[in-house]
Amino acid sequence: MIYLDSASSYPILPEVKESLSKSFRTHYANSSSSHSLGLQEAEVIKNLKETLAEMIGAYATEIIITSGATESNNFALKSLDIDNPKKHIITSSIEHKCVLNISEYLQNIGFEITYVKPNSEGVITSNSVENEIREDTAIISIMHVNNELGTVNDIQKIGDLCYQNDILFHTDAAQSLGKLPIDVDELNIDMMSFSAHKIGGPKGIGAVYVRDLKLKNISPVIHGAGQEYGLRGGTVATPLVSGFNDALLGFNRYYDMQEFERLKDIMCRKLEENGVLFQINGCNTLAHIISLSLSNVNVILFLQKYSDSICVSQGSACSSRNIEPSHVLTAIGISNEVANNTLRIGLHSQISDIDITYFVEAIIDCKL
Amino acid sequence: MIYLDSASSYPILPEVKESLSKSFRTHYANSSSSHSLGLQEAEVIKNLKETLAEMIGAYATEIIITSGATESNNFALKSLDIDNPKKHIITSSIEHKCVLNISEYLQNIGFEITYVKPNSEGVITSNSVENEIREDTAIISIMHVNNELGTVNDIQKIGDLCYQNDILFHTDAAQSLGKLPIDVDELNIDMMSFSAHKIGGPKGIGAVYVRDLKLKNISPVIHGAGQEYGLRGGTVATPLVSGFNDALLGFNRYYDMQEFERLKDIMCRKLEENGVLFQINGCNTLAHIISLSLSNVNVILFLQKYSDSICVSQGSACSSRNIEPSHVLTAIGISNEVANNTLRIGLHSQISDIDITYFVEAIIDCKL
Repeated sequence: MIYLDSASSYPILPEVKESLSKSFRTHYANSSSSHSLGLQEAEVIKNLKETLAEMIGAYATEIIITSGATESNNFALKSLDIDNPKKHIITSSIEHKCVLNISEYLQNIGFEITYVKPNSEGVITSNSVENEIREDTAIISIMHVNNELGTVNDIQKIGDLCYQNDILFHTDAAQSLGKLPIDVDELNIDMMSFSAHKIGGPKGIGAVYVRDLKLKNISPVIHGAGQEYGLRGGTVATPLVSGFNDALLGFNRYYDMQEFERLKDIMCRKLEENGVLFQINGCNTLAHIISLSLSNVNVILFLQKYSDSICVSQGSACSSRNIEPSHVLTAIGISNEVANNTLRIGLHSQISDIDITYFVEAIIDCKL
Repeated sequence: MIYLDSASSYPILPEVKESLSKSFRTHYANSSSSHSLGLQEAEVIKNLKETLAEMIGAYATEIIITSGATESNNFALKSLDIDNPKKHIITSSIEHKCVLNISEYLQNIGFEITYVKPNSEGVITSNSVENEIREDTAIISIMHVNNELGTVNDIQKIGDLCYQNDILFHTDAAQSLGKLPIDVDELNIDMMSFSAHKIGGPKGIGAVYVRDLKLKNISPVIHGAGQEYGLRGGTVATPLVSGFNDALLGFNRYYDMQEFERLKDIMCRKLEENGVLFQINGCNTLAHIISLSLSNVNVILFLQKYSDSICVSQGSACSSRNIEPSHVLTAIGISNEVANNTLRIGLHSQISDIDITYFVEAIIDCKL
């Protein structure tokens, strides 16, 4: 099976597999227990927070563990007090669907949302954000890297804008963690969301960074029994925490941008040589994500015929069972027809030249 | 290490360990993806829902997967529409801390909460609940089995009351799943919360049952990209789902009430024989949970001196790092002093006669 969907979920790293097998055997105690096995669990949590904090230039005490970036996004955006006199939120039309759904919920309870559009290259520019800033803008939430295109938004300049205008800045870094350098101070980030399973860690675990966490008056999304400074209830899944930590420490060995560029070049050259008409959506993208629109290929046939040997998504995973065209592709001006003939390819370290050749030959086989 | 804290977290079952090791290798895809690996993940989710539904007499379509019982309790209790004209909630003073904290939150947003007290045996009776029912009672939330005492509340009669009075009935079944028979129809339950790690499954996964889920207009706690009928966002952690399923199927082989009663008898007899003054709190408890108050033992010394060989909790795990006495023990009329000299013992299938003897000898060693 050729798995080309790493942007939905990155294949679990070998060392994470191994450590998970071990840690499920030994880490069954509750990290809130004061006995020695409980304290051992608390240590696992501390380790992850220190690793992640160091990686993003934060303090370990500014990290809350969640079940993944979706929960983190909920935590960050719902942290806005309903009594906040500032009722305006800026986000973008190419955010992950969960941010769009959270925004809709916030609108229902009295907030006003502005959805900034990307430019034709698939990037949210700081100018487009700046134009929408108002006196009552409470928070700006713009993702770091788009999950369908791999485009990198200008969060440094957007962070500056937020700082200058005293606006909270949240960014969904599910796709960028481990792939791009992140320094929360340099980027002026107040809140940031992460998932382990986008970097070869287990599904079901993530984190949210909150600047000066303890100074803030945040209401939890999941009320609990005091875990995570009273901000996230539920027994912490320490084997997953440990797996997340291992993924953070090991991922750079399995993420080689130059290798992904090389595979992408092979793919493009072979497609061209064989008369496949295609375009790659978005500019200056992270090399492992390729949004590939095919004009003279029966994409539906391709997906069906090769379903036993190739795993690739039309659009993003979370909504790929929907028949609607991707909201990201339509936002950058792509027609519904072209959007439906678009594959989202996610490369990873286990993909070889042979795999790419097989993939291209399958595409060619379904040429119109 | 003698682990006596199964009520906080049950040691993971051998078959669950094994299947987790396997499933983390193979189940890395996103269950929302429409490719074959994605569909395989969706199948794992379907299997768990069918197993759990069959076990509790429900339909698989009435089950939502969560990160654990705490999130499930949040989901159930926050499902009350803020515009609901009925603003009264009945719960008990011995619920899990998360339910008390959710209740406090609901009170802050306009609901009125009545906390029913247990009788001296540690049981919430239907009479005590009935006395508090009002015209505007929207929901009653009473746990099935108390996590510190092991007492079983009369949820059948409470369910009847709810049915007769057209009140929603929620019950936290984190401690009873797999240990007591549950039939949601017979017990008139509308919503029920579950955790995998209380029955030897992995931490980080649970579920909530909601009667006629699709007919209800529930707002999610975690907004996402359409997963779980749009009611719980985030990539589902399918390896954990698979582990939960294995735990449900296998747990009865590792939960032998008669064996736990036998061990408990040995413990009590040896304590008596050696002049330890003690009482066991709560009546008719599930045999694996023993709330043991010791009058002539230096419990602090015991916990410190034997911290390398015995894991046992003072009170419940989630709040056991707090210095306050257990809210459950004080609710049944136990003084702060006695509460602080109380251990919560959680037996499980790996505990032997030798372990119990060692534990009792350690207690005796710290006799005053």
